[in-house]
Amino acid sequence: VTVVAVDAMGGDRAPAATVEGALVAARSGIEVALVGDSAVIQRELARIGATPPGVRLVHAPDAIEMGEHAALEARTRRGSSIYIGVQLVQRGEAAAFVSAGNTGAVFAIALLTLGRLAGIERPALGAVLPLPAGPTLLLDVGANAEVRASHLVQFARIGVAYMQAVGGIPAPTVGLLSIGEEPTKGSHVVIEAHAALATSGLRFIGNVEGRDVFAHRADVVVTDGFTGNAILKTAEGVIDVVFTEMRRVAAGSLPARIGALLMRPALRAMADRTDYRRYGAVPLLGVDGAVFVAHGRSDVQAITSAVVAAARAADRGMRDALARSVAVRDEEAGRTVTKLEERG
Amino acid sequence: VTVVAVDAMGGDRAPAATVEGALVAARSGIEVALVGDSAVIQRELARIGATPPGVRLVHAPDAIEMGEHAALEARTRRGSSIYIGVQLVQRGEAAAFVSAGNTGAVFAIALLTLGRLAGIERPALGAVLPLPAGPTLLLDVGANAEVRASHLVQFARIGVAYMQAVGGIPAPTVGLLSIGEEPTKGSHVVIEAHAALATSGLRFIGNVEGRDVFAHRADVVVTDGFTGNAILKTAEGVIDVVFTEMRRVAAGSLPARIGALLMRPALRAMADRTDYRRYGAVPLLGVDGAVFVAHGRSDVQAITSAVVAAARAADRGMRDALARSVAVRDEEAGRTVTKLEERG
Repeated sequence: VTVVAVDAMGGDRAPAATVEGALVAARSGIEVALVGDSAVIQRELARIGATPPGVRLVHAPDAIEMGEHAALEARTRRGSSIYIGVQLVQRGEAAAFVSAGNTGAVFAIALLTLGRLAGIERPALGAVLPLPAGPTLLLDVGANAEVRASHLVQFARIGVAYMQAVGGIPAPTVGLLSIGEEPTKGSHVVIEAHAALATSGLRFIGNVEGRDVFAHRADVVVTDGFTGNAILKTAEGVIDVVFTEMRRVAAGSLPARIGALLMRPALRAMADRTDYRRYGAVPLLGVDGAVFVAHGRSDVQAITSAVVAAARAADRGMRDALARSVAVRDEEAGRTVTKLEERG
Repeated sequence: VTVVAVDAMGGDRAPAATVEGALVAARSGIEVALVGDSAVIQRELARIGATPPGVRLVHAPDAIEMGEHAALEARTRRGSSIYIGVQLVQRGEAAAFVSAGNTGAVFAIALLTLGRLAGIERPALGAVLPLPAGPTLLLDVGANAEVRASHLVQFARIGVAYMQAVGGIPAPTVGLLSIGEEPTKGSHVVIEAHAALATSGLRFIGNVEGRDVFAHRADVVVTDGFTGNAILKTAEGVIDVVFTEMRRVAAGSLPARIGALLMRPALRAMADRTDYRRYGAVPLLGVDGAVFVAHGRSDVQAITSAVVAAARAADRGMRDALARSVAVRDEEAGRTVTKLEERG
């Protein structure tokens, strides 16, 4: 049975939504370790009522706040729910850790505690976009505001490995986000990355633009964490505006009101598919262990799907598959270098 | 009467859509100078039939292609419709120039021919987003893939001047795109720009994120051309996906089909408001003259609204207002520096 450690203290709606979300996941057969202030967690468990089997409680006396200047300082707070949750993964007591808490803190602690996979200099946050034509993994969506070309190539390798191992896509294609299709379009870093990806052995389809990301042009799209974050949040913002406007026009006339009523089930199904609460959570790719960051605004449903997604990824051997895949490629790259040296 | 020069040869659907779009605008009383191969334009005019008064033809023997490596080479092609169109503005024979052609070429030629406004090192492309809560000017959306902090401050100044002069907003607010609200979030350039904007005298509201842009948090949002382009195209892509999906679910069941039929007028009105064809065109901000770039895929309606928007901007004295506003601020900045030096 897969054990998923859940940060009970992280997120805008913690601990109510985190504890309840974890319990819903536990009812589907996932073992859950709730990490946080045990008095607080027990109060929530009492409020909810029946605690399903397979729920464990791991006390953490400290909690890292959302707004806090987390990244550097967080690493020293060894009593925090994030630190203790990541440690469960490091010790093999949990197959994955899920937190809706401070992303910077999770990132810093995971990096410190679990370390990086061989061949990866900069771990990244990846978001799986649930597009009608199929999922696209966009990375980085916020961990690295600035990157080098070599980091973008590493994002591509780790992203491909993830979509193979967890997404079940045999040979994922890779696109490089830029502002034009031509290899010479974009910033200096992007132009350099284009050249490196073209000879990487990956299934590189070239540059993709903002609109291509949502047309499922590639299985994996790589970009720096600043642009990726802007893209992800723009998508959220646009969807919000469209659905708000739709509600407004639906209330505007009698025929529209009746029409909206008739369309409601279909529209709701569609809205659900694009809802961030169904994204599960974004994997932290490149650290040596399965760590997932859920949306800060996660409600019960969002936490549940995050825990389910983390358990599924762990079941599919995410950690080993990624480590193996990146290591093999690293070795290949090593061999290529050796050959070139022999020739030289 | 305002004369708008229109690049008849630029865009995926030129010359048919450009000539016809310009004629529709001319019928509303705008004088139009069609710039391009006169034989080609005359053929289009003959096809369309009655040419309204106020339509002039300016021959340009050369046309710059869309895919071409335009920017540098374009400047030497003095017979191109873009070159000749920009020259009409420079000579005062046209109040504005509109092109759906190669953005890089328009940018390079406008910069060379018209020069920059005093105080502006890097002109930018600005997109006015037609949001339900009011328009937001996003800049840069593609002219400068890399920027310095001082450029972002200049984008803010010119953006505010544009929204005052053309948008009719007395005191526009400014947001800086970043990946978190805290002043310390983002790339080094963004962190530096935050500090500079905070003391700029502009109505700076701080960092805004991707989703805030579409919630109309600020009247003007500044970012580098790489991120701005990604945001704009992401918005287009997401809207495409949502409406495609909506058509799909609307066809999925009988109640949904009837509902869609009843909602159609309301949904169409809403779709129209978010349509790029209603954006008009994006102003090239910071060059000394009114130049607008329309979407490469512009159809007749898009060209018409671009010409109308350009004429309106010209009527409102865009060029002079911008030059005055930026120059005044530049002088103020100069005074501040002088004062600091006196103190020092």
